[in-house]
Amino acid sequence: MATETLKWDGSIDGKIKMIDQTLLPNQFTIITISDIEAMWEAIKVLRVRGAPAIGIAAAYGVILGIQPYLSEFDTVAVKEQAIKAADYLATSRPTAVNLFWALDRMKKICLGSNATQPADLCQELLNEAHAIREEDARMCRAIGQNGKDLIPDGGGILTHCNAGGLATADYGTALAVIFAAHESGKKFKVFADETRPLLQGARLTAWELMQAGVDVTLNCDNMAGWLMKQNMIDLVVVGADRIAANGDAANKIGTYSLAVLANYHKIPFYVAAPYSTFDISLPNGEGIPIEQRDPTEVTDFVPGRPTAPKGVKVYNPAFDVAPAELITGIITEVGIFKPEEIKKHEKFSSK
Amino acid sequence: MATETLKWDGSIDGKIKMIDQTLLPNQFTIITISDIEAMWEAIKVLRVRGAPAIGIAAAYGVILGIQPYLSEFDTVAVKEQAIKAADYLATSRPTAVNLFWALDRMKKICLGSNATQPADLCQELLNEAHAIREEDARMCRAIGQNGKDLIPDGGGILTHCNAGGLATADYGTALAVIFAAHESGKKFKVFADETRPLLQGARLTAWELMQAGVDVTLNCDNMAGWLMKQNMIDLVVVGADRIAANGDAANKIGTYSLAVLANYHKIPFYVAAPYSTFDISLPNGEGIPIEQRDPTEVTDFVPGRPTAPKGVKVYNPAFDVAPAELITGIITEVGIFKPEEIKKHEKFSSK
Repeated sequence: MATETLKWDGSIDGKIKMIDQTLLPNQFTIITISDIEAMWEAIKVLRVRGAPAIGIAAAYGVILGIQPYLSEFDTVAVKEQAIKAADYLATSRPTAVNLFWALDRMKKICLGSNATQPADLCQELLNEAHAIREEDARMCRAIGQNGKDLIPDGGGILTHCNAGGLATADYGTALAVIFAAHESGKKFKVFADETRPLLQGARLTAWELMQAGVDVTLNCDNMAGWLMKQNMIDLVVVGADRIAANGDAANKIGTYSLAVLANYHKIPFYVAAPYSTFDISLPNGEGIPIEQRDPTEVTDFVPGRPTAPKGVKVYNPAFDVAPAELITGIITEVGIFKPEEIKKHEKFSSK
Repeated sequence: MATETLKWDGSIDGKIKMIDQTLLPNQFTIITISDIEAMWEAIKVLRVRGAPAIGIAAAYGVILGIQPYLSEFDTVAVKEQAIKAADYLATSRPTAVNLFWALDRMKKICLGSNATQPADLCQELLNEAHAIREEDARMCRAIGQNGKDLIPDGGGILTHCNAGGLATADYGTALAVIFAAHESGKKFKVFADETRPLLQGARLTAWELMQAGVDVTLNCDNMAGWLMKQNMIDLVVVGADRIAANGDAANKIGTYSLAVLANYHKIPFYVAAPYSTFDISLPNGEGIPIEQRDPTEVTDFVPGRPTAPKGVKVYNPAFDVAPAELITGIITEVGIFKPEEIKKHEKFSSK
């Protein structure tokens, strides 16, 4: 990303600066997040979204949560506040495991710290948040390098939602593969599912790919099968919000349908995700909590301009789960694996 | 329908009164169509839509096309004008065969007429348009009766786009099956795909079903597969815009994906359509012209509030084709058939 999706601005008394993704692509606005409640709200309403990015946002959010107490409380009390802050931020969204993974890392720093001064504890926590962010950026590049050879020169690539720079600390997971292939000189066409209800594909993915000079065409979600039928798609690549030990992968609603459609058309279906997205504690996808969101996301995308009858019942899960048997491979920062290989790999099995 | 979707108001100097479906569900507005250019535009921009309804609209449109000439031209010249009017209206939309079928009926009346006075010719044409409309209304009821037993008591039914009263002269094709089952006292849940880009499912189907007291839940198109995966769908029923001799059925974009998804989940997939929707001249669906519509339908659903980057390329076919092998059965006014039975049936083979 030419501009960073989210960054910490300053030292331990700093703030978060981030792109308000709800305003894209019409407005490119950098907002300042100065307190933990604003961070919670920003995650909840998707000003920042994408599994890796909300992990990073939440890690920095813990710092915001303790800042007010650094000069008043002793170190133990600040530790308590940090744990409270982490627990509070964990209630913002339920599905992406990166959120809990990042907050757990922050808690561990807190519990293991020997700092005697609140400011020193805060610095340790800030260092950990920076580390999470930097690891994520390196992960994006590694996923891109590991996945780029999957992109067929002259082919058609379908992606869903936004697993790009806006969802991570660098240039994405699924889109990292596309960006890396583009940088290597390959020519190909990307089709971006618009991704109802919140249109992250239209608003964010199309925008990112156009900015990078990648050939992108926007389609409605219900056109994906027809694109496949007409041999316009050679590869599907999507991100993930949580991957269970057997390889079942939760991702934006609509991913399950794409996996079935790709299977029917014998098109490879890849998930791109880092270590932080794996939840080896869950044997399979059945245990992944699926966030149900507000009906107005479906009925009133433009506020005040409803597109459905008043009072209509709405089904609005934010995610679904692509089962391992429909996933050709998972592109990680340490290589590409078949779903069944994940739990045997040292990196993931030790998690 | 409590209020008629479209009707002729008056005698041979009458006009068309119809619901402007682009304004639903926020505004229920009856508009008057007084000339053929307005009728062409109304079909083009979907003020009236649905394969049977546009056939009826076009038939009446032919009358509007000759009205200006009734007092000036002789009968032969009026016949010429009627043929011209039919040919003009045929250019409004390419996919639904009902349009061409209805216009061909009007042309045949014209060519076979022994009328010596323009007004008499016009009356014959108006009678034919009325007949097309009345046959369509009877067809809706017959489809409803023939299909209602397919609806499982306590089940979940998925439909796509709008194949209801707003698409026909009475209460629809796919929705006729639902309305007839509802009238018979069955309890079931309907899930309505919102149907991007123009949201006919959200705006029209949900509205019609709520008005009739049918239990309806709105979902985004990309949620259909996940609904199936969770055993919430027992039957898929959709309308059609053109059915080829082998049973391949063109319908609103997204129908193809639904057919694949239903097949994967072993859920019966039915198409409901009348005689007028069959195009036995085409051996299969490959010959069905697929309308490509304006990119702004995808990028600017609410004018002035774009949801995609300016200048993005867009793929926007209005229809796709569900192949016969994925269709469990076709519900017609003369019974339910497997796709392969269609061309053997006297009613369709003689078309």
